Amino acid sequence: MSDTCLSSNAAGPLLPFDRAEYDSRLDKVRAAMDRAGIDLLVVSDPSNMAWLTGYDGWSFYVHQAVVVGPDGPPHWWGRGIDRNGARLTTWLPDAAIHAYSDDYVQTRERHPMDHLSTLIADLGAGRARIGVEMDNYYFSAAAHAALCRNLPQARFVDATGLVNWQRAVKSEAEIAFMRRAARIAEAMYRRIFEVIRPGMRKNELVAEILAAGARGTAEFGGDYPAIMPIVPSGPEASASHLTWNDRPLVPGMATYFEIAGCYRRYHAPLCRTVHLGPPDERIRNAEAALLEGLAAGIEAARAGNRACDVAQALHSALEARGIVKDGRCGYPVGLSYPPDWGERTISLRRTDQTVLQPGMTFHFMPGLWMDDWGVAITETIVIRPDGPAECLADLPRAITVID
Amino acid sequence: MSDTCLSSNAAGPLLPFDRAEYDSRLDKVRAAMDRAGIDLLVVSDPSNMAWLTGYDGWSFYVHQAVVVGPDGPPHWWGRGIDRNGARLTTWLPDAAIHAYSDDYVQTRERHPMDHLSTLIADLGAGRARIGVEMDNYYFSAAAHAALCRNLPQARFVDATGLVNWQRAVKSEAEIAFMRRAARIAEAMYRRIFEVIRPGMRKNELVAEILAAGARGTAEFGGDYPAIMPIVPSGPEASASHLTWNDRPLVPGMATYFEIAGCYRRYHAPLCRTVHLGPPDERIRNAEAALLEGLAAGIEAARAGNRACDVAQALHSALEARGIVKDGRCGYPVGLSYPPDWGERTISLRRTDQTVLQPGMTFHFMPGLWMDDWGVAITETIVIRPDGPAECLADLPRAITVID
Repeated sequence: MSDTCLSSNAAGPLLPFDRAEYDSRLDKVRAAMDRAGIDLLVVSDPSNMAWLTGYDGWSFYVHQAVVVGPDGPPHWWGRGIDRNGARLTTWLPDAAIHAYSDDYVQTRERHPMDHLSTLIADLGAGRARIGVEMDNYYFSAAAHAALCRNLPQARFVDATGLVNWQRAVKSEAEIAFMRRAARIAEAMYRRIFEVIRPGMRKNELVAEILAAGARGTAEFGGDYPAIMPIVPSGPEASASHLTWNDRPLVPGMATYFEIAGCYRRYHAPLCRTVHLGPPDERIRNAEAALLEGLAAGIEAARAGNRACDVAQALHSALEARGIVKDGRCGYPVGLSYPPDWGERTISLRRTDQTVLQPGMTFHFMPGLWMDDWGVAITETIVIRPDGPAECLADLPRAITVID
Repeated sequence: MSDTCLSSNAAGPLLPFDRAEYDSRLDKVRAAMDRAGIDLLVVSDPSNMAWLTGYDGWSFYVHQAVVVGPDGPPHWWGRGIDRNGARLTTWLPDAAIHAYSDDYVQTRERHPMDHLSTLIADLGAGRARIGVEMDNYYFSAAAHAALCRNLPQARFVDATGLVNWQRAVKSEAEIAFMRRAARIAEAMYRRIFEVIRPGMRKNELVAEILAAGARGTAEFGGDYPAIMPIVPSGPEASASHLTWNDRPLVPGMATYFEIAGCYRRYHAPLCRTVHLGPPDERIRNAEAALLEGLAAGIEAARAGNRACDVAQALHSALEARGIVKDGRCGYPVGLSYPPDWGERTISLRRTDQTVLQPGMTFHFMPGLWMDDWGVAITETIVIRPDGPAECLADLPRAITVID
C-alpha cells in the first residue's frame, strides 16, 4: 500500500472494483427497493455489505450493517474498532461511516440495534417502510426485536434476498475475479493429486489444500473460502458436510473434496473424487452417471432455459443409470462470506422456474451421498449469451484413481 | 476409522468425549432450564449443539437445532443430507435424529422452522415455555417468526447464552484439548518466525500459517479455527479485523497476527506482532505497556477475583505508560464454530462483575489499534484453583524483530 493511500480521506484504498461498478450495483438495489415499496434498507448480510460498499473484514461476529436510503451513499454502521476497516476498504465518505462503542458488544445490558435505531431516526426514517433481511445469519431474532421496539412507528418488511437477487448476473469484472478463483481451484487440485497417498493423515492433506488456496498463483494470491474444506472418506462420505480429521487415508476408499478457490471473496467451488486403489462397480457406475448428468445439465444451462431444466437434464441422466436423486443440485455463487458460498436465491431443482440469463454463475453440484459412500464431481459454470454454459475451471471430470 | 465403527447403530463413532461428559453437560443445561422456567430448549448455536451432542459438520449454513426437553436424550434436527453426519458424530440414538427434506432448503415457499414446529408439537410441547437463542447467528428473525406463527399456544422466552454459560468452566478433558490447541498455535508461530521476510507476499505467509494449523503435531492434527487469520500490516493494523491480501510485506512495518490453534473445535487463540526492521519508540512503548499490562492482568486472573479486576489491572498498567484504552480486553474461549471463537458470555471489561472460577478459560486480548498502526500480544489463560492464571501456550511475549 503506497503512502498516497494512507491520507485520512482516501476513501477505500483497498477497493476491488471501480466506482462505476458500485454505482451501478446501488442503482439496481434502489430499483428493487422501489418495486418493493421500501424506503430504507438495512443490509446485514456481509456479502451484500461488501458487494455494495467494498467493506471487507472478519467483523461479522458482531452486529453491523449497511443502510441504503433513497439517495446519497449508503451508510456503514458497525463497531468502533472496525471504523478504520470501513475507511480502508469502502468507497464511502467518512460522514457515512458510523460506529457504536464497545460497551454494546456481546452484553445483555443493551443491544447494538438500539444504537442503529437512533441512527435510523436521525436519518429521518423513524416512520419509514424499512426492509430487513429477516432470514439471514447476521440478522438475529433479537436484532429484529430491538429495531421493532425502538422504532414503533416504522413499518418493517422482509427484504431477505433483495440484494442477493441483484447479484445473480455478474459483471465482466466479477467474472474475471471468478476466473482467477478457478485458476486457484485448479492449483489446489494439482496439489492434491501430487501429494495424496494411502496412509497420509487427512489433516496433512488438508494442510496442502489450504496452503495452495492461499498461495494462489504467481500473479495473484488466494483468499479464504466461505466454507472450509469438506473432505470425507469412505463411509464418512455418506454424510455431506464432514470436514476432516487426523486419521490416515485408507486404501480402497473414495474421498471427495468439496473445496473452492477464492479470489478477493469471489468463489469457484469445485468437487472431485479421489479413489485410493481401483473403485468397485457401483462407484464406476456412479461416476458414469455423474459425468453423463453433468454433460446433460451443462448442455441445458443456456440463457432462456430455466433452472429446473438443468436439474431435469441431470436427473434424467442419473435415472437412466438407475440412480434416483432428490434435492437440489446447484445454486448461484460469487462473492461470499462464511458460513455459505451460495447466494441463497435460485436453486437448481425441479421446481425452480427462474429463467437463466447470461452472466449468471452457478455451482452445478451433483453429489451422490449413498448409505455408506459418496461421490461428487461438480463444476462452476457461467451462463453465456449463446450455447451451453462455460465451465470456469479446466480440470478432468473423472474419479482420480491413486494406487 | 475401524470397521466396527461403521455399523448403522454405532452411535457416534467420531465422538470426542466419553458419554459421562455429555451426561454431565446435559444435567447442567437442564438445571439452568429449570432455573429459567424453560420446558423445552431449542439450541441453534452450532457450538452449543456440538457441546451437548458431539455434532460436527459444516452444515450450519442451513437451519438446524438440538432440542432439549425435560428428559431423555436431546433431539438433533437438521437437513436430510446431514442425517448421516449426525449418526456418525453424535451419541444420540437414531430415534432422536430428525431431518427435513431438501425442498425446505433456501426457498421462500416454506421455512424449515415449519418442520421443526411440527416436531415440537409431536413432542407434546405445543403449549410449553420454549427457550430460543434470540441473539445467535443461527437463529434468524425469520426462524423466530415461523416458530411463533406455527405454535401460537407456546410461550417463547429468550435463552440466549443459557448453554454458553454452562460452558464457561471447562472439564479436564476440555482443557486437555485446549492444551493441544496451544501446541498447534506454538507450531504456527514457529513457522511464521521461520519464513517471514520483507518482500514476501502476505498470502504466502498465510498459506504457511494455515498449513501449520491443519498439520498440527506428529501426534495430533489441527482443525479449522472459527476465525480465519487476521494479519494486518502497518496502517492496516489500525483496523482490527482485516484478514490478508497478496501485497508484499514492507520493511519498517509492524504486522500483528490474530490466529488460533484448533484441536477438534477447541481453540487456543494467540496474538503476536512481528516488526520488519527496528521498531520506533512509540511501538517499543506500546510493547512495554502491553507486557506490563498482560503480566498485571494474569496476576489478577485468580479464582475469586472478578472479570473487571483483570481489565482494571491491564488498564492501570497501560495508563501508567500514557495509553488510555477503551473496550473489552478478553472473552471466554473453548469449543467454537465460525464466525466467532469467543463464547459471548463474560467479557474482560471494567463493568463485568463475574467471579472467576477454576477451569474458566479466556483469550486475554489486549490489542492497541491506533490511528495508523496496531500491536497485539495476547495469551489464552486458564483460571487455577490457586495463584495467577496459567498461560496455555509457551511463546515469548514480545515483538519479534526480523531484519
